[in-house]
Amino acid sequence: MKRKVNIGLIGAGTVGTGVIKLLERNSSGIEQRVGTGVVIRKICDRDALRLRRIRKMKIRGVSFTGDAMDVISDKDIDIIVELIGDVPRAKEVILSAIRKGKHVVTANKAVLAKHWTEIFSEADRQNVLVYFEASVGGGIPIVRALNEGLSANRIRSILGILNGTTNYILTRMTDDSMDFKEALAIAKQKGFAEKNPSLDIDGLDAAYKILILSSLAFGARIKLSDIYCEGIGHVVQKDIRYARDEFGYILKLLAILKQKGDKIELRVHPTLLPQEHMLSSVEDEYNAIYVDGDAAGETMFYGRGAGEMPAASAVVSDVICLARDVYNNIAGCVPHVLCNPKKKLEIIDIKDIETKYYIRFTTLDRPGVLSKISGILGSFDVSIGSVYQMGHGKKMQDVPIVMVTHRAKEGNVRKALSRIDRLSVVRKKSVLIRIED
Amino acid sequence: MKRKVNIGLIGAGTVGTGVIKLLERNSSGIEQRVGTGVVIRKICDRDALRLRRIRKMKIRGVSFTGDAMDVISDKDIDIIVELIGDVPRAKEVILSAIRKGKHVVTANKAVLAKHWTEIFSEADRQNVLVYFEASVGGGIPIVRALNEGLSANRIRSILGILNGTTNYILTRMTDDSMDFKEALAIAKQKGFAEKNPSLDIDGLDAAYKILILSSLAFGARIKLSDIYCEGIGHVVQKDIRYARDEFGYILKLLAILKQKGDKIELRVHPTLLPQEHMLSSVEDEYNAIYVDGDAAGETMFYGRGAGEMPAASAVVSDVICLARDVYNNIAGCVPHVLCNPKKKLEIIDIKDIETKYYIRFTTLDRPGVLSKISGILGSFDVSIGSVYQMGHGKKMQDVPIVMVTHRAKEGNVRKALSRIDRLSVVRKKSVLIRIED
Repeated sequence: MKRKVNIGLIGAGTVGTGVIKLLERNSSGIEQRVGTGVVIRKICDRDALRLRRIRKMKIRGVSFTGDAMDVISDKDIDIIVELIGDVPRAKEVILSAIRKGKHVVTANKAVLAKHWTEIFSEADRQNVLVYFEASVGGGIPIVRALNEGLSANRIRSILGILNGTTNYILTRMTDDSMDFKEALAIAKQKGFAEKNPSLDIDGLDAAYKILILSSLAFGARIKLSDIYCEGIGHVVQKDIRYARDEFGYILKLLAILKQKGDKIELRVHPTLLPQEHMLSSVEDEYNAIYVDGDAAGETMFYGRGAGEMPAASAVVSDVICLARDVYNNIAGCVPHVLCNPKKKLEIIDIKDIETKYYIRFTTLDRPGVLSKISGILGSFDVSIGSVYQMGHGKKMQDVPIVMVTHRAKEGNVRKALSRIDRLSVVRKKSVLIRIED
Repeated sequence: MKRKVNIGLIGAGTVGTGVIKLLERNSSGIEQRVGTGVVIRKICDRDALRLRRIRKMKIRGVSFTGDAMDVISDKDIDIIVELIGDVPRAKEVILSAIRKGKHVVTANKAVLAKHWTEIFSEADRQNVLVYFEASVGGGIPIVRALNEGLSANRIRSILGILNGTTNYILTRMTDDSMDFKEALAIAKQKGFAEKNPSLDIDGLDAAYKILILSSLAFGARIKLSDIYCEGIGHVVQKDIRYARDEFGYILKLLAILKQKGDKIELRVHPTLLPQEHMLSSVEDEYNAIYVDGDAAGETMFYGRGAGEMPAASAVVSDVICLARDVYNNIAGCVPHVLCNPKKKLEIIDIKDIETKYYIRFTTLDRPGVLSKISGILGSFDVSIGSVYQMGHGKKMQDVPIVMVTHRAKEGNVRKALSRIDRLSVVRKKSVLIRIED
C-alpha cells in the first residue's frame, strides 16, 4: 500500500477548521497533485469545546489531544500545521517541531516577524522546511510570488494593502462619508474587526507582514522595531474628503518597502494614492500587494486577505507542496527561503525619507496667514504644489488651509510644522499625510 | 570547486537577449538563491547577425552556434532555454532536449497549447522538468500561482486579459475615442503590435494562453480547436461608447474559463465588464488574470504581459528554480505539472452558454420597431434588461437601438437575431457582445 502523508494540526480555530474542511472537500484533487493521500492524524487544541465541535465533523482516523507535544512527538506525523494565535506558544510549537525533524506550515505572521532568523536558521540546521503562505495576504499567493515567481528580480519597491480591517474602515470612511468610530463599529459588526482591534488599527499587523515580505525579498535580517509604524486611529473624515475632492487622492493604510541603494525604507502609515492607481480601487476587506521589480516591472496581486477559507487555501497549498516533497523523499533538500542571519539591512530613518505631503492647517481667518505659512515651509526647503483654502467671508473661527507639497525631506517638513503650529494664527495641530505617486 | 549549473540558450531574439542581460545583472542574487553560479555555456541562433550582436556583450566562457543540436547534445549543459518563435522548430528542440535528459525552460505558448500532452508525457517518462512561466502573462507569475499557490482550490473561473496588443488597442478606442484602424496603427508605431498582428487581433494568442491555464487548473487534456475564439477586428467605436455611456460597461478582450459541473466553458471574445470590475481598470499593454477558486475566492494577478525584461523575469525565475533543484540533485523527482492524458474535459458549445448580451440593432425610424424586435426576442426566451434608443424626430435613416438583455442562452439569442435581421425595418446586421458580470 502507498504511504500516505500525515498531518498534525495544532490550533483548531477558524483557520484550522477551514483547513480540515478543505482537505476533506478537495481530497481527490489534492491526492492527484501530491501523488498520494494527505490525512490529518492528530488535532490539538487546548479548548475542549472546539475539539468537541470538530469531533462532530467525523474525520476518519484522527485522534484528539489538548497537548501539542503529543502531536509533535508522534513519529508518524510528517508535517505540523501550526495555527495557534498566541505568539510564545506558537513559537515554541514551531521550534519544537523543527527540532523533531518535522516540516511546518504556519499562518502566524507575528511569530515570523519577531523570530524570523531564529526559525529559519533552526530549519536550515535540521533540514526541514517552514512554509507560511497564509501569513501574508490570506488567499493571495504573494509569498510564492516573491520567493519564486519574481526571484530573478531585484525588488525596487513594495506597496501593500496588507490589513483587511483597516482597508474596510477606510473604504467606509471614503465611500460612505462615515467617521472613524462609525466605520469601526460597522467593521466589528460585520466580523472584519476584532473586539480589541488595536493590532490592526495601529498598523502593527501590516508591519509584521511587510517585514516578512522584505525578509523574503532581500534574504536579510530586519528588526521589527526599525519599522516606522503609524495607524489610522487619528484619521479624520474631512482629510479623506479634501484629499479626494480637491486633489484626487484616495487614502489607504500602506505598508511600504523601497530599496534605496544598499539601504531600505520600511514604513506603515496612512498614505494618499492617486485615484487612478490600481491600489486605489482595492476596496473593503480586500488586500493587494503592488511590487516593482527591476525586470518584471510593476505587478499587482489582489485578493481576500483573511477569512476561514482564503487562509485555508494558502495553508493547504503549502501542505500540498510539502507533502509532495515528503512523499518523494526530497523535502528539506533545498531550503524554502534565503535566510542569511549575517546580512543586515540598514533602514532609513523616517526623518530622512523624501516624498510629497498633504498638509491641513487650521488657522484664523486673517489676511497674510498663507503667506506666513508658506514662508516658513520655504525656509525649510518645502515648496508647495497646490493649495486649497476655504472661501473667506464666512466669518469662520477655524479655517482649513489644505495643501499638497512637492517632494521634501520629512525631517524638514516636521521642523516647519512645529514652527508653524506655534504661530498665534494657527489654532490646532496641523495634519500631515504622506503621498505616494 | 563548486559545480555550476550550465545553461544552453536556443533563440537569441528579444527575450533571449533579456535573459542574457538579467542573468548577468542579477548574478549575485541568483547565485545566492540557487546555491551556486548559473552560467550560459552555449548560445544558438540561426541568424548570424543576432549572434554577432550578442558576441559584443562579451559574456565569459560562452560559445556560439547556429545548430540547436550542438547545444542539446552538449553533456555539460543542464538546462535548455528555448526561445524560438517558430512552432515546429521549437517543438523539435523541446522534445529533443527532453529525450536527452535536459530540463527545459520555454516561453512558447503556441507549442505548449498545441502539444501539451505530448511534451509533458515525454517529460514524465524522462524524469525531466519543463517550466514555462513566461508563456502566459509575461512578468506576472500566474503559472506558479495556479500550479502551486492556488493548488488547494477547485478553480471555478478564470477571466484573463492575456493579450497586451489588443488591450492596448481597446484602451485607445475607449479612452481616446479612436477607431480600430487608428488604434492599431499607433500600437504598431509603439511596438505593441507586430507587422502582421492577426495572431493577437484574432484572439488566437489569448486562446493559447487560456488553454495553458486551463490545463494547469484541471490537469486534463484540452483541444485548442474546442476553444471558441472571436477577435477584436470587427469592434466599432460606437459600441464601446454606447456600452460605457449608457450602461456603464468597459470592453475588453477576455479569455474565459468557467467550470460547470464536469464540463467547462472555454472561450475568447470581446466582453463587456462593469466599470467597477477590477479588470476594467487594466489599461494599455498590461495583462491581468482574475481567478475564482472555491477556497481563496476571487484573486487577481496584474502586470506587464510582454516585453524583453518582463518575459526575461519569468524565464530566469524558472531557471533559478530548476538550477536549484539540479544543483541539489533533485530535479525531476517530482513532476512540475499534473498531466493526465486520459482525463478529457468536455467543453460546452458556445450555443449552450448562458450570459447577458449587449445588442445593437440598426433600424428604420418607424413606430413599432422596438415592439417587433422585443417580440421576437421574447419568443426565443430572451428578455430585455434595459434599452437605449436615440432620440426620434431627427429624420435619421439608420437609428440605433441598443439594449442589454437578461441572462439568455446564446443559441436562442442567435436564432432571434437572425430572424430580426431579416425584418424589412432592420437595416444592418445586428451587433452582439457578451457581458460578464
